[in-house]
Amino acid sequence: MPDYVVGVDFGTLSGRAVVVRVSDGAEVGSATHEYAHGAVERALPVSGRPLPPNWALQVPQDWRDVLREAIPKALAAADVAPTDVVGVGTDFTACTVLPTLADGTPLCEVDGLADRPHAYPKLWKHHAAQGQADRINAVAAARGEPWLRRYGGKISSEWQFAKGLQLLHEDPELYALAARWIEAADWIVWELCGAETRNVCTAGYKGIHQDGDYPSPDYLAALDPRFAGFVDKLRQPLSPLGGRAGSLTARAAALTGLPEGIAVAVGNVDAHVTAPAARAVEPGQLVAIMGTSTCHVLSSDQLAEVPGMCGVVADGIVEGLWGYEAGQSGVGDIFAWFAATSVPPSYVEAAAAAAGRDVHEHLSALAAAQPVGAHGLVALDWHSGNRSVLVDHALSGVILGQTLATRPEEQYRALVEATAFGTRMIVETFEAAGVPVREVVAAGGLLKNAFLMQVYADVLRRPIAVAGSAQGPALGSAIHAAVAAGCYPDVRAAAAVMGSRAPEVYRPDPERADAYDPIYADYRELHDHFGRGASKVLHRLHARRAGA
Amino acid sequence: MPDYVVGVDFGTLSGRAVVVRVSDGAEVGSATHEYAHGAVERALPVSGRPLPPNWALQVPQDWRDVLREAIPKALAAADVAPTDVVGVGTDFTACTVLPTLADGTPLCEVDGLADRPHAYPKLWKHHAAQGQADRINAVAAARGEPWLRRYGGKISSEWQFAKGLQLLHEDPELYALAARWIEAADWIVWELCGAETRNVCTAGYKGIHQDGDYPSPDYLAALDPRFAGFVDKLRQPLSPLGGRAGSLTARAAALTGLPEGIAVAVGNVDAHVTAPAARAVEPGQLVAIMGTSTCHVLSSDQLAEVPGMCGVVADGIVEGLWGYEAGQSGVGDIFAWFAATSVPPSYVEAAAAAAGRDVHEHLSALAAAQPVGAHGLVALDWHSGNRSVLVDHALSGVILGQTLATRPEEQYRALVEATAFGTRMIVETFEAAGVPVREVVAAGGLLKNAFLMQVYADVLRRPIAVAGSAQGPALGSAIHAAVAAGCYPDVRAAAAVMGSRAPEVYRPDPERADAYDPIYADYRELHDHFGRGASKVLHRLHARRAGA
Repeated sequence: MPDYVVGVDFGTLSGRAVVVRVSDGAEVGSATHEYAHGAVERALPVSGRPLPPNWALQVPQDWRDVLREAIPKALAAADVAPTDVVGVGTDFTACTVLPTLADGTPLCEVDGLADRPHAYPKLWKHHAAQGQADRINAVAAARGEPWLRRYGGKISSEWQFAKGLQLLHEDPELYALAARWIEAADWIVWELCGAETRNVCTAGYKGIHQDGDYPSPDYLAALDPRFAGFVDKLRQPLSPLGGRAGSLTARAAALTGLPEGIAVAVGNVDAHVTAPAARAVEPGQLVAIMGTSTCHVLSSDQLAEVPGMCGVVADGIVEGLWGYEAGQSGVGDIFAWFAATSVPPSYVEAAAAAAGRDVHEHLSALAAAQPVGAHGLVALDWHSGNRSVLVDHALSGVILGQTLATRPEEQYRALVEATAFGTRMIVETFEAAGVPVREVVAAGGLLKNAFLMQVYADVLRRPIAVAGSAQGPALGSAIHAAVAAGCYPDVRAAAAVMGSRAPEVYRPDPERADAYDPIYADYRELHDHFGRGASKVLHRLHARRAGA
Repeated sequence: MPDYVVGVDFGTLSGRAVVVRVSDGAEVGSATHEYAHGAVERALPVSGRPLPPNWALQVPQDWRDVLREAIPKALAAADVAPTDVVGVGTDFTACTVLPTLADGTPLCEVDGLADRPHAYPKLWKHHAAQGQADRINAVAAARGEPWLRRYGGKISSEWQFAKGLQLLHEDPELYALAARWIEAADWIVWELCGAETRNVCTAGYKGIHQDGDYPSPDYLAALDPRFAGFVDKLRQPLSPLGGRAGSLTARAAALTGLPEGIAVAVGNVDAHVTAPAARAVEPGQLVAIMGTSTCHVLSSDQLAEVPGMCGVVADGIVEGLWGYEAGQSGVGDIFAWFAATSVPPSYVEAAAAAAGRDVHEHLSALAAAQPVGAHGLVALDWHSGNRSVLVDHALSGVILGQTLATRPEEQYRALVEATAFGTRMIVETFEAAGVPVREVVAAGGLLKNAFLMQVYADVLRRPIAVAGSAQGPALGSAIHAAVAAGCYPDVRAAAAVMGSRAPEVYRPDPERADAYDPIYADYRELHDHFGRGASKVLHRLHARRAGA
């Protein structure tokens, strides 16, 4: 009788549970649960208290509801008996972080605090702590803090320290009350097994844990004397990925319908956990999770400080290797923006007339018919800023070459190409820093656009392999559950059996690849001109937009 | 009993006749006639013989039809007896030029030649003679021809010499047969009065007539030995603007219904003839004729070689002053391109729902609500290349600053602003070269967009006066007819009485003008970076587009 594991992926708007067979990674059933409150960006629930601009919160009960709703439904869909499940694993968006009491109770659930914005979890895309991030970076640079270069020279406003410093500055009473400042990735594990753990992945990428410790009290006091003890809210021995955080509690068993006592895996991040699902955890394997944005995770036996990466963390993807993370902050959402704002009625009607085509498919089909370079356009994919390799969210989109004959599908193609050039820039930056990229594996929602995938292969001049699962993060969490349950000795071994690849590989066409090289050279010229200081015009435009 | 004159404006797709009262410039009736063949760009009439790319021809009979149809209709609409008409004046697009026999018969009307593309008039926007223009410029620069700087250092492929050299290269037999190579502006006058004349305006701006002569036979022979005698096809004593070319022939009287023997004014160009209609023929008065493209004509008592102007010609707008011409090759057609290709269905529906609004009005209304700079965008208005001050048609459009929140009306506004910045660049270039601009007067179709006009006033930091007539060229031709008929001593005197201004003046708002200054500085940075050689990326994009 086979064993099963359950993987649960907590996204931005919903959570998904998948039941996976341990012996071969087969996904036998799944279910999704939408968060009742989604991303809280305009006003607090219940009171309706409005939020300032750039805030993004979540509601912990929404996450519990995923456990309660999606896990039983996935089991039912799989027709698997709960008693056949030997472990549960989870992954989360990150850095999504919340203040809790010492027992893990979210402050927003403490009597009398439901109307305090800072009592809620701050979602990864909460962007109201830029001032704090600026201070964190300036002080770290001035003091020569050694960890700074592990993050491409910049700590993001999205991460634990910037969001924690914002809490201190704006609601010091709650800051004092928050015994723990914890990633949602670890909090959900606490809910499942009743014990606080801290995974190496979020501690490293989002919590500035490097070479065995967090930033020093001296440094933190230099940020704000009241912040000197911040790390006390984080400190906990770190747990390795694939480790067993504990056993499912009676309360969690009642909530989920799973057997009490089964293995609960250490928490993880949605992007990083996709690597084992895509069977890509060996040195040099880069997984690009391509959706509204793209996250690149790369395992390596080489430590290097690569300019503009999001971070390098020991054991950050799998134990025993350096885990690199890089990212493009706008990809699919740039195409969505274009489709929503810049496509005329005649195209929308033509797409509708071609049965079953959406606007993206219609534009892609038209664009694919053109030879490389024929549109005479080149764009910079910075509509949502640039994460890697420039780490600059004041940048914005650029397009050159429009004529009175330029058509929508040509601009769409130029945007697709720009995101491919952005990926090539990241790959080349890794390699130039001494971190070889031996294979590129794609996962995520953009895989469905074969035209786009082919552009990426042509631009990168590399074959692009494809992850086998459409729900890579949940499968990755299930793989971690199997390791935590002792079914496999480690994540690499489990990934070799349970991870999967699709049969197709996108291979570069030599002629198109040659034609792309000079356009990529133009992209690089513009990238460096507008992104590396020669021209500050994009910063001036950003300041003007922000000031108006 | 009052006297009347008739002005006829020959445009790209139609001709318009206006009946004007001599005593006060009142327009008492008008009529338009669409050309049966429009602009011939794909295939010759009758035979259907296809044309190569970038060709644009016209059919002379279409022009005669304007005389036959529009003049009688305008008289009828005005309820004016033909016997009360004392003169007729005309203006034309330029350089629109044709080969004729010695008696003025267009070659395309000669038996057996109707199927020869080079037998037809080449319309101003015929763009297939760039190779010839390149050679004209290179040889002139190498020989240090003194006239070259009068044209901003570049002779356009649109003008008489490039089109004539193309005729020689591609159909030498027709070149030999063409006794005359004549502007349509002069040809139509020949049709009316039976005598060949050559006006100083097209001879100067389009025919490289400077300081009393055309380019030398030595220079022409250096282009091609067979071209040495080209000027023989042009040569004729030049006639001043406002002069009497001759008297209406019996044949033309029969065609038009006008009395035989009345004054026929010397030919003119649509843009230049608008200056007297706008009562703007004094030194320092610049008239911007704003439509699909914008033409700037400026009278001055100063001779200077202004970089990037289209030309400076003695007596080229009115006698006794230097006439300057500059231009922006894409203005209204950029907005039309954007409206047609880049506005989503929701906007088109909203515009339709707001009774009587077209998409331009809708976008303008939305854009006008934003403070200056709030969109965070800056664009270069080069979608149709740049005429002044860069004289470079390999350039193309650029837009910077797009984010996922950028809306269509914001991009539309950025394009409007870009064209205003382009105008400011021209005005500043004139002034920097020592040619003062004392007043700006606007005419043309874009006047109907009050939002756009206000942007121009704010960007230019100058009041913008408005021409009184919606049919400025035809009124200007009527003014020339009145002078030719002896009703006024000269064009300046006639313009003072018959020209007109609208009551409104667009005045710059000091706060908005201040806010535009730094955005204009950004425009200049990009203009110089991409337009003056620091970056050649737009040329590479152009070459790639042309090569594909």
